[in-house]
Amino acid sequence: MKLEDIGEFSLIKKITKDIFVDKSMVIAGVGDDVAVIKTKSEKYSLLTCDILIEGTHFKRETITPYQLGKKAIAINVSDIAAKGGIPNQALISIGLTKDTKVKYVEEIYRGIKEEAKKFNIDIVGGNTALSKDKIFVDIFLIGEIEPEFLLLRSGAKTGDKILVTGNLGDSSAGLEIIENPDIKFKGIKLEMRYKNNLKIAHLNPCPRFVEGKIIAKSKLAHSMMDISDGLSGDLTKICEASGVGAIIWEDKIPISKETLAFAKSIKKSPLNFALHGGEDYELLLTSPPENANLIIQKIQGKTKTKVTELGEIKDKEFGIKIVKTDGRIMPLNTYGWDHFRM
Amino acid sequence: MKLEDIGEFSLIKKITKDIFVDKSMVIAGVGDDVAVIKTKSEKYSLLTCDILIEGTHFKRETITPYQLGKKAIAINVSDIAAKGGIPNQALISIGLTKDTKVKYVEEIYRGIKEEAKKFNIDIVGGNTALSKDKIFVDIFLIGEIEPEFLLLRSGAKTGDKILVTGNLGDSSAGLEIIENPDIKFKGIKLEMRYKNNLKIAHLNPCPRFVEGKIIAKSKLAHSMMDISDGLSGDLTKICEASGVGAIIWEDKIPISKETLAFAKSIKKSPLNFALHGGEDYELLLTSPPENANLIIQKIQGKTKTKVTELGEIKDKEFGIKIVKTDGRIMPLNTYGWDHFRM
Repeated sequence: MKLEDIGEFSLIKKITKDIFVDKSMVIAGVGDDVAVIKTKSEKYSLLTCDILIEGTHFKRETITPYQLGKKAIAINVSDIAAKGGIPNQALISIGLTKDTKVKYVEEIYRGIKEEAKKFNIDIVGGNTALSKDKIFVDIFLIGEIEPEFLLLRSGAKTGDKILVTGNLGDSSAGLEIIENPDIKFKGIKLEMRYKNNLKIAHLNPCPRFVEGKIIAKSKLAHSMMDISDGLSGDLTKICEASGVGAIIWEDKIPISKETLAFAKSIKKSPLNFALHGGEDYELLLTSPPENANLIIQKIQGKTKTKVTELGEIKDKEFGIKIVKTDGRIMPLNTYGWDHFRM
Repeated sequence: MKLEDIGEFSLIKKITKDIFVDKSMVIAGVGDDVAVIKTKSEKYSLLTCDILIEGTHFKRETITPYQLGKKAIAINVSDIAAKGGIPNQALISIGLTKDTKVKYVEEIYRGIKEEAKKFNIDIVGGNTALSKDKIFVDIFLIGEIEPEFLLLRSGAKTGDKILVTGNLGDSSAGLEIIENPDIKFKGIKLEMRYKNNLKIAHLNPCPRFVEGKIIAKSKLAHSMMDISDGLSGDLTKICEASGVGAIIWEDKIPISKETLAFAKSIKKSPLNFALHGGEDYELLLTSPPENANLIIQKIQGKTKTKVTELGEIKDKEFGIKIVKTDGRIMPLNTYGWDHFRM
């Protein structure tokens, strides 16, 4: 059987199904973005890793090495932020091709160091290896959280409201512009400023670190994760981990004016980007209904970041559905990012 | 400037020179194989990562996926063992090409899980990504150690004896046989059993976990590291980190009968393998002279593993030298593994 026949997520289930862990120490392991480990102190350890591989996640021609370094840290911080935690230390595992210029590597590290400093992360080690064909930056990040504030994927409860920070789809719209610089805008002129904002959303994502901490410390939410594989795929992960279903309203999905204008200009539905586009790094969370407005007000008051209520958690039997703008209720298809089915 | 002009170790110095770390928390950071972090419990955290990349560290034709998985864990355990610590949790970051068979991935994981179980390591997460051309397995391992037992590269003192576990050179001799199956044995028949032992030393290294713990808990040593880049290169790292020099005796370097026979059969010096060959994963340590025999007896008594005294730590001004079998004293050249100068 080939990887594309099984897909990324079934593969992961298959290879990790009989993994043994010491349940007295491991609060959350395989199946969440972040591993949560009991320690002998009063806090839990949070462990995560995420990688950027040339040819898969980026092209050398379309991202600067400085942006690459920053992004490699940012996407890992996003995972820690989605648990409500703070990051502490990072190890940098980097693969370089023989033709890589020293200056290029220095620029990657300038980005890494700058972004690490922003989040008060100590770079404490790593590994530098020769890679035959493609560059990669693999980062291991360790953080911590007080047990009482921890939010997992698996905490969603029937009746919860579904909330999301920011807008969805900007990153994948930006990627489409980056990958197709000669893309035909059918009759509609897309402002340069709009194009740049979308590109930046893809190249320089900003993890919702402050928002994650506020949500966790408020104790108003039941579950949380960051959206890295697209809303449809990641909402499905929360539902699977929590043993619930969900309904979302198409017309409530927050989409920026930039993505709306871009989608219109290329005659595509903006929902393609907002529902199934990857790398948004926004927070997806669920909360008891009475807390939803409190969360929205708290975040908007303290950070100016928009929070949108876009659906509700249902019983598992309900499945995962979307209410279209015309009122039809349809199953929510998951076309989120799958590495082996692109 | 290209990577091969600067080399791996100068590159690492260059890119990490202005890294900021919180010195109240980070006991050892960049510059050791393992980062050592203070925690709020009575133990230190140990963090390390090491990778196996297709085309750089292995070829798909010459290692089974099961061996690959086992080795990926073993080389990381070796780093923790060299601090005297115990490993606790691992994250597995794996890059797979689209043509990889599901069975192949399952076999990698069978090796990972089996080796992890051996050392009581919980696999708590990771990442599975598409890699365009080459497979890789990057492992992030977390361990712990009581502060009083911690051994660093930087603890060597003038007058210390230099000790090493096991034999040196088997892994690189094994690699030479694996890479050149048609290698000409000049007139001397090398027993199949010998060849297999050398190949196994390369494909299935056994980290000196028990030995590392015994040495650390004995408090008889001053410094320790594992030999992954060759004795010459790694002794130099201990000397640089400790601000000392060293002298070793060529005729004391422990070499197996297999490597001696293989080197003879291909008319090469066995010292090429023992001094400069990589991936031995033996422990290199220094101790006050009065403790050297105690360590040797303790390890041999409890584990049957041979420990050899092969040199002495000198003042920095002395440099790093080797006494040849004919009595000449020469500078010890470091031809150890450098990723960008192969």
